[in-house]
Amino acid sequence: MTAEYIKSVVKTVPDYPKPGIMFRDVTSVLEDHKAFSSCIALLLEKFKPYKFDKVAGTEARGFLFGAPLAIEMGVGFVPVRKPNKLPREVISESYELEYGMDTLEIHRDAIQPGDKVLLIDDLLATGGTIAASAKLIRNLGGSVEHAGFVIGLSDLGGAEKLAAMNISTYSICEFAGE
Amino acid sequence: MTAEYIKSVVKTVPDYPKPGIMFRDVTSVLEDHKAFSSCIALLLEKFKPYKFDKVAGTEARGFLFGAPLAIEMGVGFVPVRKPNKLPREVISESYELEYGMDTLEIHRDAIQPGDKVLLIDDLLATGGTIAASAKLIRNLGGSVEHAGFVIGLSDLGGAEKLAAMNISTYSICEFAGE
Repeated sequence: MTAEYIKSVVKTVPDYPKPGIMFRDVTSVLEDHKAFSSCIALLLEKFKPYKFDKVAGTEARGFLFGAPLAIEMGVGFVPVRKPNKLPREVISESYELEYGMDTLEIHRDAIQPGDKVLLIDDLLATGGTIAASAKLIRNLGGSVEHAGFVIGLSDLGGAEKLAAMNISTYSICEFAGE
Repeated sequence: MTAEYIKSVVKTVPDYPKPGIMFRDVTSVLEDHKAFSSCIALLLEKFKPYKFDKVAGTEARGFLFGAPLAIEMGVGFVPVRKPNKLPREVISESYELEYGMDTLEIHRDAIQPGDKVLLIDDLLATGGTIAASAKLIRNLGGSVEHAGFVIGLSDLGGAEKLAAMNISTYSICEFAGE
């Protein structure tokens, strides 16, 4: 199965969540076993050579791809969550949205100094959530140099924003100006 | 790896989210590769013989175990989400919490009539979210006869509530009166 097949399975929902937005719906990939398992296989092929210590994924759709990938890579999975969801001691990072702010949290003991961490999310748009997640991991002494996505929206500047933080990005399929 | 090992990895956080509650923290299982992959292996061993058509998991921690299990079982994964998260046409089901109500949604086209669906969540307590998820799937013509969990809190009546809906439950490890 190829990236082209996965791209063909992504459903586009026009005018969601507001007029003018072409929403790329990754749930259609999950529902198709061939597409979903191919995503994990492609991410594994791309990232296994780097020998990461942990995979981290951002709530909630990052869990869907990051958790299976961690199992396949033979490492633990670290959830990056919205506020007040993690029960043990956390650190927090706030970041700007189009309107207002949002905050992400991580367990303080989930990352050990020196850990090489791979960040996974379903979709790369402006890169705000991944930038905040990388800051959390780096604040705990972990290293973040790579992030992987199923879908990249290449017009929105996410790859450039993350490159400026020394994070390389890989998206299985790209949508640009469509 | 055994269920006893997985149970030993679950961290207990006293007085979270409020005094008197012993919170069973499943994130400690995710962070331990052996424990996490053993969870998926045990769920697979238990449920593979039933030949399900789909695995469904409830936002957000149900995604962490349901998605890898769907991949291993060779079937698609259906996310059951909180309101206004799914972009296509949905149906909704509200259910009672200790204080107030909550609502879950599912894509109308995610279940076909006759689909045999396995429900997965991290933890079985009173069974409210799984009961609501099962109603959504049954309303779309799917059948739900089994639900699987990593942790069962056997004092809270969840298994009995679901049994009354003809849903059998299996939890990898149980905590009772601790």
